[in-house]
Amino acid sequence: TQKGNTSTRLYASASEKVFDRLDTFDRRHNGSSTPASLQEMFKTVGVKSFDQLIEETVPASIRANRPLKVGKALSESEALETLKTMMSKNKLLQNHIGMGYYGTYTPTVILRNIMENPAWYTQYTPYQAESAQGRLESLLNFQTMVCELTAMPIANASLLDEATAAAEAMSMCFNVAKSKKTRFLVSDLVHPQTIALLKTRAEGFGIQVVVEPVKSFDYSKQDVCGVMMQYPATDGTIIDYEADVKKAHEGGARVVMASDLLALTILKPPGEIGADFVLGSAQRFGVPMGYGGPHAAFFATKDEFKRLMPGRIIGISKGADGRPALRMALQTREQHIRRDKATSNICTAQALLANMAAMYGVYHGPKGLADIATRTHRLATVFQLAAKDLGYNVSESPMFDTVKLSLGSEAETKKVVDTCVKQGINVRPMGTNVTVSFDETHTETQMKTLLKAFADAKGKPAPASLDKYAEKALAQEAIDPKLKRTSPYMTHKIFNSYHTEHELLRYMMRLQSRDISLVHSMIPLGSCTMKLNATSEMIPVTWPEVGQPHPFAPRDQMQGYAEFFADLEKDLADVTGFYKVSLQPNSGAQGEYTGLLAIKKYHQHRGEGHRNICIIPTSAHGTNPASAKMLGMKIVAVGCDEKGNIDVAELREKAVKHSKELAALMVTYPSTHGVFEESIKEVCKIIHDNGGQVYMDGANMNAQVGLCSPGEIGADVCHLNLHKTFCIPHGGGGPGMGPIGVAKQLAPFLPSHPVIPFQGENEKTAMGAVSAAPYGSSSILPISWMYIKMMGSEGLKRATEYAILNANYMAKRLEKAYPILYRGKNGRNAHEFIVDLRPLKEASGISETDVAKRLQDYGFHAPTMSWPVAGTLMIEPTESESKEELDRLCDALLMIREEIRAVEEGRMDKLNNPLKNAPHTQDVVFSSNWSQTRPYSQELAAYPASWTKQFKFWPTASRVDDVYGDKNLCSCLGMEAYVNDHPSAEQVA
Amino acid sequence: TQKGNTSTRLYASASEKVFDRLDTFDRRHNGSSTPASLQEMFKTVGVKSFDQLIEETVPASIRANRPLKVGKALSESEALETLKTMMSKNKLLQNHIGMGYYGTYTPTVILRNIMENPAWYTQYTPYQAESAQGRLESLLNFQTMVCELTAMPIANASLLDEATAAAEAMSMCFNVAKSKKTRFLVSDLVHPQTIALLKTRAEGFGIQVVVEPVKSFDYSKQDVCGVMMQYPATDGTIIDYEADVKKAHEGGARVVMASDLLALTILKPPGEIGADFVLGSAQRFGVPMGYGGPHAAFFATKDEFKRLMPGRIIGISKGADGRPALRMALQTREQHIRRDKATSNICTAQALLANMAAMYGVYHGPKGLADIATRTHRLATVFQLAAKDLGYNVSESPMFDTVKLSLGSEAETKKVVDTCVKQGINVRPMGTNVTVSFDETHTETQMKTLLKAFADAKGKPAPASLDKYAEKALAQEAIDPKLKRTSPYMTHKIFNSYHTEHELLRYMMRLQSRDISLVHSMIPLGSCTMKLNATSEMIPVTWPEVGQPHPFAPRDQMQGYAEFFADLEKDLADVTGFYKVSLQPNSGAQGEYTGLLAIKKYHQHRGEGHRNICIIPTSAHGTNPASAKMLGMKIVAVGCDEKGNIDVAELREKAVKHSKELAALMVTYPSTHGVFEESIKEVCKIIHDNGGQVYMDGANMNAQVGLCSPGEIGADVCHLNLHKTFCIPHGGGGPGMGPIGVAKQLAPFLPSHPVIPFQGENEKTAMGAVSAAPYGSSSILPISWMYIKMMGSEGLKRATEYAILNANYMAKRLEKAYPILYRGKNGRNAHEFIVDLRPLKEASGISETDVAKRLQDYGFHAPTMSWPVAGTLMIEPTESESKEELDRLCDALLMIREEIRAVEEGRMDKLNNPLKNAPHTQDVVFSSNWSQTRPYSQELAAYPASWTKQFKFWPTASRVDDVYGDKNLCSCLGMEAYVNDHPSAEQVA
Ligand SMILES: Cc1ncc(COP(=O)(O)O)c(C=O)c1O
Ligand SMILES: Cc1ncc(COP(=O)(O)O)c(C=O)c1O
Ligand SMILES: O=C([O-])O
Repeated sequence: TQKGNTSTRLYASASEKVFDRLDTFDRRHNGSSTPASLQEMFKTVGVKSFDQLIEETVPASIRANRPLKVGKALSESEALETLKTMMSKNKLLQNHIGMGYYGTYTPTVILRNIMENPAWYTQYTPYQAESAQGRLESLLNFQTMVCELTAMPIANASLLDEATAAAEAMSMCFNVAKSKKTRFLVSDLVHPQTIALLKTRAEGFGIQVVVEPVKSFDYSKQDVCGVMMQYPATDGTIIDYEADVKKAHEGGARVVMASDLLALTILKPPGEIGADFVLGSAQRFGVPMGYGGPHAAFFATKDEFKRLMPGRIIGISKGADGRPALRMALQTREQHIRRDKATSNICTAQALLANMAAMYGVYHGPKGLADIATRTHRLATVFQLAAKDLGYNVSESPMFDTVKLSLGSEAETKKVVDTCVKQGINVRPMGTNVTVSFDETHTETQMKTLLKAFADAKGKPAPASLDKYAEKALAQEAIDPKLKRTSPYMTHKIFNSYHTEHELLRYMMRLQSRDISLVHSMIPLGSCTMKLNATSEMIPVTWPEVGQPHPFAPRDQMQGYAEFFADLEKDLADVTGFYKVSLQPNSGAQGEYTGLLAIKKYHQHRGEGHRNICIIPTSAHGTNPASAKMLGMKIVAVGCDEKGNIDVAELREKAVKHSKELAALMVTYPSTHGVFEESIKEVCKIIHDNGGQVYMDGANMNAQVGLCSPGEIGADVCHLNLHKTFCIPHGGGGPGMGPIGVAKQLAPFLPSHPVIPFQGENEKTAMGAVSAAPYGSSSILPISWMYIKMMGSEGLKRATEYAILNANYMAKRLEKAYPILYRGKNGRNAHEFIVDLRPLKEASGISETDVAKRLQDYGFHAPTMSWPVAGTLMIEPTESESKEELDRLCDALLMIREEIRAVEEGRMDKLNNPLKNAPHTQDVVFSSNWSQTRPYSQELAAYPASWTKQFKFWPTASRVDDVYGDKNLCSCLGMEAYVNDHPSAEQVA
Repeated sequence: TQKGNTSTRLYASASEKVFDRLDTFDRRHNGSSTPASLQEMFKTVGVKSFDQLIEETVPASIRANRPLKVGKALSESEALETLKTMMSKNKLLQNHIGMGYYGTYTPTVILRNIMENPAWYTQYTPYQAESAQGRLESLLNFQTMVCELTAMPIANASLLDEATAAAEAMSMCFNVAKSKKTRFLVSDLVHPQTIALLKTRAEGFGIQVVVEPVKSFDYSKQDVCGVMMQYPATDGTIIDYEADVKKAHEGGARVVMASDLLALTILKPPGEIGADFVLGSAQRFGVPMGYGGPHAAFFATKDEFKRLMPGRIIGISKGADGRPALRMALQTREQHIRRDKATSNICTAQALLANMAAMYGVYHGPKGLADIATRTHRLATVFQLAAKDLGYNVSESPMFDTVKLSLGSEAETKKVVDTCVKQGINVRPMGTNVTVSFDETHTETQMKTLLKAFADAKGKPAPASLDKYAEKALAQEAIDPKLKRTSPYMTHKIFNSYHTEHELLRYMMRLQSRDISLVHSMIPLGSCTMKLNATSEMIPVTWPEVGQPHPFAPRDQMQGYAEFFADLEKDLADVTGFYKVSLQPNSGAQGEYTGLLAIKKYHQHRGEGHRNICIIPTSAHGTNPASAKMLGMKIVAVGCDEKGNIDVAELREKAVKHSKELAALMVTYPSTHGVFEESIKEVCKIIHDNGGQVYMDGANMNAQVGLCSPGEIGADVCHLNLHKTFCIPHGGGGPGMGPIGVAKQLAPFLPSHPVIPFQGENEKTAMGAVSAAPYGSSSILPISWMYIKMMGSEGLKRATEYAILNANYMAKRLEKAYPILYRGKNGRNAHEFIVDLRPLKEASGISETDVAKRLQDYGFHAPTMSWPVAGTLMIEPTESESKEELDRLCDALLMIREEIRAVEEGRMDKLNNPLKNAPHTQDVVFSSNWSQTRPYSQELAAYPASWTKQFKFWPTASRVDDVYGDKNLCSCLGMEAYVNDHPSAEQVA
């Protein structure tokens, strides 16, 4: 059934036809849905139909012969209505749970102009620094803010959540101690979700996590690589850790401190106490709780550890014109992640949320933040005093925002918690205690309701007035002088300038104008699937029902989310052909880790815990070996044949050789070379025959959905990058989600959660937690749900067909100019393909980097560069681009080919040419000495194609010098980096 | 009480201090709220405090000695919560009311990226065409779409609503007939709100409106200037008007047709039936009903009438570089509106909504629109068939979307309507009939509920299945062949290209990138008050409770809006010092008209209906005389003295001379010259002493709020441009709101409404309707409410003080370089001031236009040009700009002064210089022959100031040739205007 501008559907009845809603989505999502352009593309590709194309592309042996069970597509309005109805079943109680998640006001100007703005949320990770100076500046602001609040010299640009950040710190402690010290001490007053995750992760590294009170930490055996403390602690107390830190250091252990940025505006910062690693969540800096996420975790450390630091770091380097320019530092750690020498597998992080938190800091400034902290603390104090007056046994230890009441018994705890729930309030039960946390959103009315509940539980009247408590709270010195912050922070002009809405709005808009994103042009990033992130998919994210819940709100209040998760899990299981899905992992790499751990647990469960070898093809993404490594697996590499396919003979040989210890194979399908390997079923069989399980990397699911499935192909587990195939926008480097699907035998080992246990028979076999929140970044899951429902079974399949068609169309248009590196059996590519630039480089000296940078002058973001093969570009157009857009990119690449030819043929200088000098900024192009320095015209430099005359996206930095930046790594804005008269890295850049 | 970054408030109690929310707004709204910058500004201005400044600026005689009663400011979150609670009292029933308002799906990509996007909604009216090519293209699309759907050759870029558009058509008929034919016939099947408004307006022109069935129209007296028909009619029937049109033309009358763009996709268009004027509402093209608005009305006519057409028309002209460029045509009709020769007073229209409707057309394309129309028609047909089967007496006349049932008695009507309401449904009662209208949002479930209600009312079971009706609806030819549209429409590529979300998104973003707005820099437009339009103010507009209600939903369902209106009226009455407020007028000019009409009615009511003279100072805005003219008043001008103040002696003389016929004075305060005239109380007294009433033009209320008030000064009525002082964004030329406040004696004459009567004692004396909806553009009123509540009494006053300070600061900084034209008693300006360029022009040949255009190169929108005084610029900074931003603009103007000096002194060529050649586009600056043609550098052209290096806003057209455009007026995209290979005026421009 050919789709035109309006879908031509088959209807079961006349009333279905009459009433069918017309705001259908598939035609908005798929780029080339007009019959005419489709026919042209078929012609170029040399097929008559989608069926023929798919037959020639996807091996018959794996083609699914079943339709998906997602069902009929819902229209945009219908999907929104359905989800709204479902999510309205969530009950939004007054929240005092704490535990690392707090109510916060997202300044509406940030909400609308960053979080809900496609020009920010559709950005890619800033690999192409010259067209990404805006978000790079914002991320540098984030890092600077973190450095200054923690009083640490270096910070990264976000991690996934506080718990995984803690695990990263643990692994750094272990590595710094050269893997020789195997104990990691954790205070029993660390958040329980963090402890759970540390335990999960420790196993893989062979670390033993010991949880006990800080005061009893014992270093006498010299086997402690690190200790972890929470500051303030999970029960609210602010502990003076100075002596403990000293003791730890003397005992040869590194100190990890989990902390709270808001508290640090008025508390002595960890850096001044001697911490080696400081981490935590930046959620309460304007990012909605979202039933668990997404939020940015922060991570800071000492200078000496910076080169081991996980995650992306924004650094200051310089451009070819000598001016300062921002960039991701130490990039080689990233896509070419250090494979089996890696210490972390993190890629996708939380850039968008880090940007929001940074802007929150910029908007409030140091004084505004301290005011919020002070008010929050005063509210807690009012409650502390009033509860005491009501006769509660209230902890009188120093605290910031959380008050602990000792109730004497768990029965009493239950009574108080239940009384609160009846009043519409959630507090945190904690054994025989409850804790009550406060945040910037709490009001006087809420305080009264809260005290009413606590009075009720005591059978007493609520205090008539809060004045006397308020007076006391104002009178008593806010924070114990010993614990109080005295050092200044965020003194830089950037945190002291944009405090009115116009100023912030214009600052955000200026940054936005420097960044290329999907609002400008296609981003053809192989393996990253930069497809349409539709508005209707995004809308639910900021609904209160979706965005506001605390992740540890009791399950029975979250009926909406419960139904929603069940439905999404069902659809994802269907799409992947698996038995069960876990929504917990927060990224693709996290999914890999989780899937491999399930395999490991499975082997252990069967008494084959010795199985420890993971076979990984050399073409695999760097996260694959990194994830295996984190689980202590031994990696055995297997190569490819000259066609880019797994060398099956070698694989068989190695599988057989290691059959006693074989744990798993990790395989990406279609391959990272963009090819549907014919041998995949055979490959799976070889692994199974030798006792292993097959982990399929789902990064390329966009070529599978509806046509075949990992489960049916023979895999046992795969992750889905929902931020690729399922439309979660890339956000300039996150958020993402990496749920995994598993076959039945692996289901018992899927993640659980210490606070929100997963009811059911698997509670005992479950692996524990892999994310801080039970369902990862819950609030962005609706994006994928909306996509699935609005596409329906048919639409999902058709999208895959378009994705494959678009790739093959582009490959055809380009193949005469550039060799296409790998192709499948019938000369077909999957949904992406690799353009080989090595021969051209040899002939002309023009490299893949030159081409990538030159594309910026044409208004395009470059394809994936030098991955999976150095010297190449990997292009993935996705289904969401129109033929016109594909043609524009092809035209650009063909024009660039001619420019290369001019160099080859000596018509252009070998070094001083538009390719080597790309990208061209306004600054460079307008410089009055242009004609003295460049032997080509300004027009050729900046307007090489007709469309650049209609709309010109200008890179704002000249080619950035990576080597210089890595040598001079600097992740925070040193004051000296700023020019004085204007408060912004704008002048640095 | 000095405000710092965080407000320093005085608290009544400790708990007030502790619990006070910190998300306060005034410090976000006022630009220079840091103590340091404030002190610097005081110093420059030469005052010690705000108090001193105000004392020196606002005459003591009028200074209010009372605080406003608005009360304590609510924080952003508090205001949002309060409003949400209030508006949640609106009941949102299933809507079938029709009458020109219909449910519609706003494509979410348009909702988020236009309606909720400050880069679109903060644009000013596109007077500076070179930096406004984006919205100009979109408005041209709107005009083209209207032309093609109506089959008329020329259309404008929106009017306020269908009813006022009808009135404009009536007045054109009258004018075309040289005011000699005084009858205007109106079909009784025109919407009642339109009829009501025609009657209101007709009086002023001396036209007699006759309402009767079309078939009985009688032209025998040759006194009919025009006739008006509704197509489809208000009761749903599609009448074949061909013979009626012929008869009208033969009878010497012009034909006005109110129509529906959606219906016209499948109905024979009015242009093919012979209509002279076609108008209607574009609301159902993606614009929420909003309880009445805002929406764009459209207006199309024949070529011969184009120079009489009211409202803004976008035309195609050319730039100085010879390339096509878009612009507002016939601009002289606008700010320099033709005063007492005017035939219309419209200024602010509905640009933002026209852009939304245009994008809806671009997104759906002709086929998509026709599909929506067809589906809507089928739904109506299903209902028609099923209702008949239920035994209803159903009209079988051809219809499009509205079905009429004859019930025999009003009691039966009531019964059916009530039964429907009980089922959660609104239908329209129409005497002994009900009508039931359908739109694109209706679903099968809703149809079933509807039929259940109609079955209930008959005591019958609802039809079990809709299939048989659906089959019939599909089988029968949709529209009678005689009435069916056969001509193609919207065949241009622009309506056939952007049908996927990526394509539309990028198209919108490309257009956006060409338009300067408040997201870039201050827009210092004297008399237009381009202040911050804060996000929190905008958020409620698109809440379902605010945006979804039908304006004619029964009052008792709209409890939320009722409370809201009462509260807003109270606050506006407080601010203006008046007794009562009407929220009905949709713009400032409409407010003027309404206020003058109240005065007229008042005189009539007192038996002084002969009072017919309106005194208007020569410095008044063009709308003042235009409004008076529309009421048939005789205008007597009074001049100004050399200081720009009203010549009181002349005024007294004329008032006394005309004291028998004196109706009113219209006066702007502070004056349009930016001065608080000392004489204002005396002026009011003179008028009152001579039997007149004082109309105060409230355009300059931003200099009064909290300091003084029109009521207390002595005026009897004033309008408020809520889109100036009260933060409704300008939207690129609308929406706006122009409510009026009146003294007690005028209150009985305020507007009412024929469908939603205003209960109360004034129903009989009320003037009738001045807008189609009872409360004008209700859904944007929350913007002003939010502003008022978030500022509070203190904040509102402080904003005024800042506005005055900012103006005086800028005037001080500029006065040595440019003469400041008028100043008050102590050398102070009010909130705006006039920079005189005439002496410089004489010396250098550089004109105010050159300066305005050159400012674009510096990244600024020009101030108001040549109004109120030719050869000048009027600067109004508003309170929302920071000292840094004010300084930037001052610096730009001072640098420009030096450029002028270079010309004066012969260091630059008199004609070929950066001022005369401004603005400079990328195209021009990059042209390879730059150095051959320009004797100055590219840097000087494009980067004259340091900040342009950080962020450069590029004008995309060279200076537009107004004369050429007006000579070759063309308001629709002729196909030939497009270049073929890319479907967009992009290539025209
Ligand atoms: C093949 C492959 N595997 C795994 C990943 C890691 O996914 P994530 O960035 O979500 O952690 C990627 C990311 O690009 C990938 O391309
Ligand atoms: C002094 C004055 N009066 C009246 C108006 C007309 O207001 P509106 O454009 O809202 O009709 C304006 C608009 O700028 C104005 O400046
Ligand atoms: O006409 C004006 O918008 O001032």
